Amino acid sequence: MLIEKYIQEKSHLVDKRLKELIPLNPGSLQKELFEAANYSLHSGGKRLRPILVFAALETFHEDPNVALDIACAIEMIHTYSLIHDDLPCMDNDDMRRNKPSLHKAFSEWIALLTGDYLLTYSFEVIANSHLSDAKKVKIISVIAHKIGAFGLIGGQYVDLSSENEKADWNKLEFMHINKTASLFSACLECSAIIADRNESEIRSLQNFGKNLGFAYQIVDDILDYETNDEEKATAVSILGFEEAKLKAEELFEKALSSLSTLPLSTDLLKNLANMLIKRKS
Amino acid sequence: MLIEKYIQEKSHLVDKRLKELIPLNPGSLQKELFEAANYSLHSGGKRLRPILVFAALETFHEDPNVALDIACAIEMIHTYSLIHDDLPCMDNDDMRRNKPSLHKAFSEWIALLTGDYLLTYSFEVIANSHLSDAKKVKIISVIAHKIGAFGLIGGQYVDLSSENEKADWNKLEFMHINKTASLFSACLECSAIIADRNESEIRSLQNFGKNLGFAYQIVDDILDYETNDEEKATAVSILGFEEAKLKAEELFEKALSSLSTLPLSTDLLKNLANMLIKRKS
Repeated sequence: MLIEKYIQEKSHLVDKRLKELIPLNPGSLQKELFEAANYSLHSGGKRLRPILVFAALETFHEDPNVALDIACAIEMIHTYSLIHDDLPCMDNDDMRRNKPSLHKAFSEWIALLTGDYLLTYSFEVIANSHLSDAKKVKIISVIAHKIGAFGLIGGQYVDLSSENEKADWNKLEFMHINKTASLFSACLECSAIIADRNESEIRSLQNFGKNLGFAYQIVDDILDYETNDEEKATAVSILGFEEAKLKAEELFEKALSSLSTLPLSTDLLKNLANMLIKRKS
Repeated sequence: MLIEKYIQEKSHLVDKRLKELIPLNPGSLQKELFEAANYSLHSGGKRLRPILVFAALETFHEDPNVALDIACAIEMIHTYSLIHDDLPCMDNDDMRRNKPSLHKAFSEWIALLTGDYLLTYSFEVIANSHLSDAKKVKIISVIAHKIGAFGLIGGQYVDLSSENEKADWNKLEFMHINKTASLFSACLECSAIIADRNESEIRSLQNFGKNLGFAYQIVDDILDYETNDEEKATAVSILGFEEAKLKAEELFEKALSSLSTLPLSTDLLKNLANMLIKRKS
């Protein structure tokens, strides 16, 4: 199957399930919270993280549907992080995916609460999913760690605290790995947990996720190069355009070589990685 | 043992464990996040929610220490909710417990991220605690639900959306029950889960927590009466001073009568409730 078709099919499943998990509850006093959550969840996100979860499960010959709620929970977490990042006290972005960001479409305090809600609810969805308790606990532990102070939130902290500072590769690596690669890696690790894979296979997938996520973020920097406001440190501002492209390529190769240690056909994950890294927009 | 002494001893345990769970990590790039978390966690909170967890376990003749990490996770959640509530786009409170609120002592974006961190980390702490997987999953499900859109966050939404609106008892009840009573009730339910109590006992404790939390919040309204800026709807502004006192008393009696259905000595919980409701500040 073409990778584009695969993505389209799986995105559709995620969209549908997210709408079931967060109905609009029109009669409730807090209905605006659900409207706001739906606004951000259904604003054209590519569902990359859920698709990583599914693709890893297919690689292990497991039914990807068993992870639908985990994938949706991860998409809620990704969405919460974007909502909070866009707030005036953070990146202060008025637009997201060519639409007003949530605090512009609704209000600042609703955006703050909606982010809190999506983060909180993601753990409820995992706890209520149809996996064994042992797997649910492992998944919650992995995800909470990778989106916490030693993952996504830590990366966001360093990003904001370094604004207007002199660019530095070590800091950029920390930011990119924590802000993006951590959650990519968590997606793959969750699938490995669901599929009962061993420690060495989990490590291979973690490395694949980490290098893919890092490469993905550098490609973002490269694609943003022309529109970038120059104030933010990016792979291009630190390494230069050509060197940044080489770095992305190197990380992509590293990601693929982690996959080659798995005793499985990994074409789906490779095709997905290839599409993410070779993209033009 | 005197209830004050009990509270003091247990608070000390919570303080100590929180410092172990969130060390300052002085060498890390994101060390300010840990400093900020410690600032808010150790700013004189009364540790009421952890103490409810412990007192319920003692009522069931269980060792309260088995729930230390759960109690700390709940205190982190309470602290996150205060940090986010104080932000300029929410209640815009510059002071908390006679100290600058976190966004004043640090900055707005650090306060936002620190709240996100405490919320996220609370689930990691529960997932990594030394309970059975089945209990951890139940506890995560209960807590996430009671602090989500149908609990704390829902209550906060209705509170903020009703500002400057005409006061209305139904809305106030919704706010108080969701913002305060929900988490009180979750504390007691977690203890019942840990102690393997049956459904009817869990319901009795939920009702105790709900009515106690509601009464506690009305007592807050009564104590705040003189300093209240009159713009916010409170039990006093809706019911009047005397009627609000009667309502608190009625809810307190209801809370106690829920306890009397338990086949156990509930003196510790009763004494605790009494202290919370009869307090003068």
